[in-house]
Amino acid sequence: MVSVDVNSDIGEGFGHWYVGDNADAQIIPLISSANIATGFHAGDPSTMYTTVALARKHGVSVGAHPGYRDLLGFGRRHIHTAAHELIHDIIYQIGALREIASAHAVTLQHVKPHGALYMHLANDHEAANLFIHQIHRLAPELILYVMHGSLLHQLALDQGHPVICEFYADREYDQSGSIVFTRKTGALNLSQIAQKILKACRENKVTTIDNQEISVQFDSICIHSDSPGALAVVQTVRQTLEQAGISIQAPDCMNTKLYKQ
Amino acid sequence: MVSVDVNSDIGEGFGHWYVGDNADAQIIPLISSANIATGFHAGDPSTMYTTVALARKHGVSVGAHPGYRDLLGFGRRHIHTAAHELIHDIIYQIGALREIASAHAVTLQHVKPHGALYMHLANDHEAANLFIHQIHRLAPELILYVMHGSLLHQLALDQGHPVICEFYADREYDQSGSIVFTRKTGALNLSQIAQKILKACRENKVTTIDNQEISVQFDSICIHSDSPGALAVVQTVRQTLEQAGISIQAPDCMNTKLYKQ
Amino acid sequence: MVSVDVNSDIGEGFGHWYVGDNADAQIIPLISSANIATGFHAGDPSTMYTTVALARKHGVSVGAHPGYRDLLGFGRRHIHTAAHELIHDIIYQIGALREIASAHAVTLQHVKPHGALYMHLANDHEAANLFIHQIHRLAPELILYVMHGSLLHQLALDQGHPVICEFYADREYDQSGSIVFTRKTGALNLSQIAQKILKACRENKVTTIDNQEISVQFDSICIHSDSPGALAVVQTVRQTLEQAGISIQAPDCMNTKLYKQ
Amino acid sequence: MVSVDVNSDIGEGFGHWYVGDNADAQIIPLISSANIATGFHAGDPSTMYTTVALARKHGVSVGAHPGYRDLLGFGRRHIHTAAHELIHDIIYQIGALREIASAHAVTLQHVKPHGALYMHLANDHEAANLFIHQIHRLAPELILYVMHGSLLHQLALDQGHPVICEFYADREYDQSGSIVFTRKTGALNLSQIAQKILKACRENKVTTIDNQEISVQFDSICIHSDSPGALAVVQTVRQTLEQAGISIQAPDCMNTKLYKQ
Repeated sequence: MVSVDVNSDIGEGFGHWYVGDNADAQIIPLISSANIATGFHAGDPSTMYTTVALARKHGVSVGAHPGYRDLLGFGRRHIHTAAHELIHDIIYQIGALREIASAHAVTLQHVKPHGALYMHLANDHEAANLFIHQIHRLAPELILYVMHGSLLHQLALDQGHPVICEFYADREYDQSGSIVFTRKTGALNLSQIAQKILKACRENKVTTIDNQEISVQFDSICIHSDSPGALAVVQTVRQTLEQAGISIQAPDCMNTKLYKQ
Repeated sequence: MVSVDVNSDIGEGFGHWYVGDNADAQIIPLISSANIATGFHAGDPSTMYTTVALARKHGVSVGAHPGYRDLLGFGRRHIHTAAHELIHDIIYQIGALREIASAHAVTLQHVKPHGALYMHLANDHEAANLFIHQIHRLAPELILYVMHGSLLHQLALDQGHPVICEFYADREYDQSGSIVFTRKTGALNLSQIAQKILKACRENKVTTIDNQEISVQFDSICIHSDSPGALAVVQTVRQTLEQAGISIQAPDCMNTKLYKQ
Repeated sequence: MVSVDVNSDIGEGFGHWYVGDNADAQIIPLISSANIATGFHAGDPSTMYTTVALARKHGVSVGAHPGYRDLLGFGRRHIHTAAHELIHDIIYQIGALREIASAHAVTLQHVKPHGALYMHLANDHEAANLFIHQIHRLAPELILYVMHGSLLHQLALDQGHPVICEFYADREYDQSGSIVFTRKTGALNLSQIAQKILKACRENKVTTIDNQEISVQFDSICIHSDSPGALAVVQTVRQTLEQAGISIQAPDCMNTKLYKQ
Repeated sequence: MVSVDVNSDIGEGFGHWYVGDNADAQIIPLISSANIATGFHAGDPSTMYTTVALARKHGVSVGAHPGYRDLLGFGRRHIHTAAHELIHDIIYQIGALREIASAHAVTLQHVKPHGALYMHLANDHEAANLFIHQIHRLAPELILYVMHGSLLHQLALDQGHPVICEFYADREYDQSGSIVFTRKTGALNLSQIAQKILKACRENKVTTIDNQEISVQFDSICIHSDSPGALAVVQTVRQTLEQAGISIQAPDCMNTKLYKQ
C-alpha cells in the first residue's frame, strides 16, 4: 500500500456545544477526508460553513455525514423509520451541505451515513436498496463509504457506484470482521494503534479481540473524533503512515482505485 | 396586465401535523409558483419530497421558502440572530430543497423568506445586504420575491438580481403601502378580494384600511395558505383573473419581465 | 356494567399545527379522562395550559400522556433508548404537566404513555420494570392506563399500583386479544362501533378480525382523537353508552373499582 | 458580610454535548446553589437527573434555570414571544425539574431565568408582571434570583416574593450598575476576581469599566460555568471567601435574610 485515505467525523458540535476534545481545527490538517455532520444528529449551518472553510484551507476533501434526526442521542439510537423517509432525510442533508460547500467553491467528494444510520443502511435490505438506488440516480459521483462485506457494499458494487471501504483504527474487530461497538473504550493505547495500522496497511490483517488474525480490505482509515484523546490518535495514525512511507490521500485524488474492488 | 404570477406558501405541515385547511393538493393546481417550506419553520424532507412532486405534476414552479429555526412559532417570531448565521441557515435550506427538487428533475425558480424572516430581511440593513450579496453570488438565477419598495427590493435592483414584487390579496394595506399584519382576519370576504385583485391588476391601485387609494407595483399575487378558507380565496383569485382575461404564469415563463422594474 | 371511563388523547397539536379534526373543544365535553400530550411527541406548554383549562371546565379528569422525543414521527416510531433514559423522560413530562395542572388547581389523575412508548413499556422487560418501580415510588397515586394482560399490567398488579385497563373502540382485535394496529383504518363504521361497545360493556366480549369471539376486561374505553372522524366516533360512543344506561365516569370518581382487577 | 451564596449554572450540556470545561462534577462541590438547566436552552431529563443527584450529594441547593426554547442559540438569543407563552414555558420547565428533584427527595430552592430570558424578564413590563404574578401564585416559596434594581426586583419586593440579588464575579459593570455583556472575555484574571469579590463583600463596592466606584447590593455571587476557565474562577472565589472568613451558604439556609432587602 503506497497511499491511503484517512477520514474522520468533523463538525459534530451544535451551536455552543461540542463533543470530544473540540479539536476539529487540529484534526483537520492531519486527515484527507472530512465527514461533515449535516444538522440532524449534529452540526448546524454555521458550524458546517466554518468547517467546510477549514477543510478547504487544508486541502481536505469534504463529504456529507447525514444521520438520524436525533440531536439528543447524537444519532446513535436507531429510530424505526420507513425506508423512503430515511432516504428523503439523507437527500435533504446532502443538499444542505452541497449548497454550503458550493459557497466555498468546494465540490462534495463523498457521503457516509452516521452512527446508527450507518449500521442500519449497512445491512437492512429495504433501506440499503432504496438508498443505493436513489444515491446512484441523484449523485452518481458521490463516493460511498461502506463497511467491507456489508450488504450495502455489495449493492453498490452491483450498481457500479463508487465505494470506499473503511478500516477502523480505534475499534476492535471480532472474527466475523465486524466491529465490536463499545462506547467505553477506556484509554486508547497509541502504540497498539500504530501497530494495528501498520499490520493492516502492510499485511491487510487485523488481530481480533479473540486474538485471531483475519484479513481486512480497505481504502480508508476511519478515526472517530468524538472521544477524548481523538487528536492523539489522529496524530499517531498520521505519523505512523508517514514513517512507513504511506502517503495520505483522499480518494478523489486517486480515482483509479475506485471501481476496482 | 395580460399575465400575472400567483404564489402561495405550500408544504407547511410537519410530520403528521398540518395548518389551515390542509388543502395543498387542491391549491397547487390553481397557482403558478409554490413557496415550499424547507424544514426550519415548517416542512420536513418527506413533505418537501411529496410537495415538489405535486408541483411538478401540475406545472407549478418551485421556490425555497426558508424561515427562522422555530417550529413552535411557525417562523412568525423574530429571533435575534447574527446576520451571517441567518444567511447560513438560508443557504442550508435552499440546498436541501434544491437536492430534493433535483430528485424530481425540477429546477428551483425562486426564493422567498418566510414570516418574520421575510420582514427582517426586508428592511434590516446588515441582514438584507449580506443576504443579497450571498444569494447573488451563490444563486444568481434564483428570483427573489420581495416587498415593493423595501430595502431588500432596492438592494436587489442595485445588484442586478432578478426580483418579483408581490401583491397581498388577503392582507390589508395602509397608506405607506405596508401590509397591516393582523392574524385575526375573520372571515375573508371573497367578493371584496375579487374586486381588490381586479383593481390592482387593471389600475395598479389598492384601497387602504383608511379608505385611501394608493398605487401598487407587482408581478405576483401572494395568497396565504395557512388560514382556514385559503382554498376559497385561491379559487376566487383564479376565477377572477381568468374571467378578466389575465393569464396566470410563473415568472420563469415570462423572463422578459425581469430586470425591467 | 353501570359505569365506564371514556379516555381520549387530547392536546396533540404543536404550536400552530394540529392533527385529525382539530376538535378537542368538541371532544373534551364528551369524555371523562383526557390524556394530555406533554411536549415530546406533541403538545407544548401553551397548548397544555389551554387544554387543562378546558378539561377542568368540563369536569374531565386529567392525565399525563408522555411520548418519545419525536415531534416529526408523532411518537409513533420506536427509538432505541436506554430504559433509565426513558424513565427520566417520563418523569420530566409528568412533572411539566403536573405544574401546569396545578396552575389550574387540577390534580393529575393518571399517566398513559403514548404510541410507540405505550407499546414498548407494555412488554419490554427492563423498561416496564423500571417504569413501574419509579412511577410507584414517585407517584403512587397516578393511575396507570394499561393494555389488559400486558407485562406492565401484571407488574403493576404485583406492585399494588392502581391500574385501568382499556378497550379500544376504534381498533381491531386479533385472537390473542392484541390490537391490530393499522393506520389506514378507512372510514370508521359508526354503527359497528356502537355494537362493539355494547357487546363489550354488556358481555365483556369482542369479535376479532377473524370473526372469533374473545373476552375483554376493561375499565375504560379509549378513543383515538387524531384521525379524521374522531369526533363522530366519540359522539357515537357517548350516545350508545347513555342509551344503554351506562354512565361515563372517570376512575378517580369510582375509586372502589381500583385494586380489584 | 459573614456569609454569602455562590450560584452557578449547572447541567448545561445536552445529550453527548457539553460547554465550557465540562467541569460540573468539580464545580458543584464548591458552590452553594446550582441553577439547573431545564431542557429548553440546555439540559435534558437524564442530565437533569444526574445533576440533581450530584447537587444533593454535596449539599448544594437546587433551582430551576428555565430558558428560551433555543438549543442552537443556548438561550442567548431573544425570541419575540407573547408574555403568556413565556410564562407557560417557565411553568413547564419548573415542573419538569421539580418532579426530577422529587425523585431524589430534593425540594427546589429557587428559580433563575437563563440568558436572554433573564434579561427580558428583568425589565420588560408585561412579561415581568405576568411572571411575578404567576410565580408568586404557583410557587410562593421559590426564591427568585434577580438583578438588583431591575423592574423584576422591584415587582418581587412589591409582591412580597422572596428574592436574592446577584453579584457577577466574572462580568464587568458600568456606571449604571448594569453588566457589560461581552462574550469575548479573554483570559479571566484570577487575582483581579479575588480582589473584586473581596471589595464587593467587604465594602459593597465594585470598580466599573470606567474606573469608577459604585455600590453593589447582593446576597449571592454568580459565576458562569460555560466559559473555559470557569472551574479556576469558582476555585478562586471559594478560596478568597474562605480566607476572608466569609462562609458560603445557600439562601434556604439563611432564611432570615430574605424579605429584608
